[in-house]
Amino acid sequence: MTINISFIGSGRVATHLATQLSKQQSILIQQIFSQNIAHATCLAQKVSATAIVDLSELKSVDILIIAVTDAAIALIAQQLSQLNYQGLVIHTSGSTSLDILTQYNLRAGVFYPLQTFSPQQSIDWLNTPIFLESALENDLMLLNKIAQSLSSHIYYYDSAQRLSLHLAAVFACNFSNYCYDIAQQILLDRKVDTDLLLPLILQTAHKLQFSNAIENQTGPAARHDTNIMDLHLNLLNQQPDWQKIYQLMSNEIQKRHPK
Amino acid sequence: MTINISFIGSGRVATHLATQLSKQQSILIQQIFSQNIAHATCLAQKVSATAIVDLSELKSVDILIIAVTDAAIALIAQQLSQLNYQGLVIHTSGSTSLDILTQYNLRAGVFYPLQTFSPQQSIDWLNTPIFLESALENDLMLLNKIAQSLSSHIYYYDSAQRLSLHLAAVFACNFSNYCYDIAQQILLDRKVDTDLLLPLILQTAHKLQFSNAIENQTGPAARHDTNIMDLHLNLLNQQPDWQKIYQLMSNEIQKRHPK
Repeated sequence: MTINISFIGSGRVATHLATQLSKQQSILIQQIFSQNIAHATCLAQKVSATAIVDLSELKSVDILIIAVTDAAIALIAQQLSQLNYQGLVIHTSGSTSLDILTQYNLRAGVFYPLQTFSPQQSIDWLNTPIFLESALENDLMLLNKIAQSLSSHIYYYDSAQRLSLHLAAVFACNFSNYCYDIAQQILLDRKVDTDLLLPLILQTAHKLQFSNAIENQTGPAARHDTNIMDLHLNLLNQQPDWQKIYQLMSNEIQKRHPK
Repeated sequence: MTINISFIGSGRVATHLATQLSKQQSILIQQIFSQNIAHATCLAQKVSATAIVDLSELKSVDILIIAVTDAAIALIAQQLSQLNYQGLVIHTSGSTSLDILTQYNLRAGVFYPLQTFSPQQSIDWLNTPIFLESALENDLMLLNKIAQSLSSHIYYYDSAQRLSLHLAAVFACNFSNYCYDIAQQILLDRKVDTDLLLPLILQTAHKLQFSNAIENQTGPAARHDTNIMDLHLNLLNQQPDWQKIYQLMSNEIQKRHPK
C-alpha cells in the first residue's frame, strides 16, 4: 500500500525529509507547496512531485507535512481549516504543541526528528530519534510506519516532553555551534586555519559516547586556573560580547566543578 | 638512537602522552615524578618507568616534560633551577609562555597538543595538531622528532600564537562541553535518556568538516523565533543561571544572524 505525502514548506527540514521519504518504495511525494515557486519547484523536482503556490490546489493525501518556521505553523493551520482540509496534518517542530493544529479542528499529528539540518549535509537518519504525537491511534500507527522507514529510534512524546527535549537540543546543538563560531572567528582574525580545531571538537563530542559531559569537562575554568582565565579575558578586550560569554560560562563551570 | 624522557606530573596529559610515547621503539620513559607516590607509581607501571617523589632524584634525560596544571609550572621551574637542572625542559600548556621556563634559565621548550584528555578515552593522536616552540634549533629538532612519532600535524607557534589558539579551544571544547552538560541536566531532571542527544551533537560537530559554524547555525535564535525562545526561557524559570546563558547566547546568535 502506497502512502501519499505532500509538504507545505521547502526549507531545510522539508528538503531533507522529503528527499529521504521519496527514496522509500511505499511512499510517494505528491505536492510541494511554497509561497516561492522557485523554491517549491526546486524541491518538487528532486522528489518527483508537483510544485504549488496556492494551498487551495492541495490534493487529498494520507499525510500533509507542515515543515515551515515555528511562527508560520499557526497561519498555515488556519488557512487549512478555512479550506476545510480533512486529512491528517502534521508539523515537524520540537517546541510547538499539537494544539496549534487541533485548535483549528485539524486531524493533527507531530513528527519531530531530533536533528540539525543544513543544506548539502547528509543526515544519519537511521540513528536520528524521531518523536511522534497524535490524538488518534490510527494516525499514530501511520506516522510510526513512515518513521520506521527512516529511523530505528522512534518515541511517543507529548508536547510538553518534546518542548523540554527541544530546549536541551538548543544547548547541545545551537549554543555549542555558536561556541565553535566564536572559536573560528578568533582564529580567522589571526589568519589561523580553523581546521586545526576539528580533532578537538570531534573528540569533545565523541567522548559523550562513553561518559557524561560533567565527567568530560576540562579547561582552565574547571581547574579554577584564574591566571589563564585572566590572560584569555585580557586577549578578548576588543570583543566585550565574547568576554561576557567567557566570564559567564567560566563562572558556571567553576560552580559546577567546585575546588 | 634512543630518546630518554621523564615526566613531571601524572595527570591526564602526562598519562596520555607518556603512554603514547612509550609505544615508540625509539623512546624510553625513564622517571615519573609526582608528589603523590600512588599516582606516580600508577603511571610509571604503565610505561615501564620509575616513580619518584623528590625532584632531586631526577636523572639526566634528553627531554624532561612538565605536564602539571598551568599554575604549578612556575613552581616546578623554580625548583629545577635551584637543582641546577641542565637538560631540555618543556611544558605542554597552551596558554603558558616559554618565558615561564627561560626566566629560571632553563633550556626550554613547549610541546602543546591541541586536544582534550580524559581518563579512559583514547585519542586520535595522528590527527591531533601539536605545536612546538623552543629557543634553540637543535631542541626544536628533537621536539619535532618525538612529535612526528605521534602526529602528522606539527606546527611551530610562538607563545602569543599559542595563547590565541588555546583561547579558541576553550570556546570550541570547554564551553561547548558545558552546553552539552546543561542539555544533559535538562533531560536528566525529566528522567529522559541523555543518549537521545548524541546523533544531534555528533552531526553538529561533523558538519564543521564541510562548512563553517556560521553557515551551520540553526535554531530559534538564528531564526529570530521569539515565541519559541520565550517558551524556553519560561521553562528555565527555576534555573536562573541557565536562563542567563540562554538569553546571552541567543542575543549573540541573533546579532550574528540579523533578520
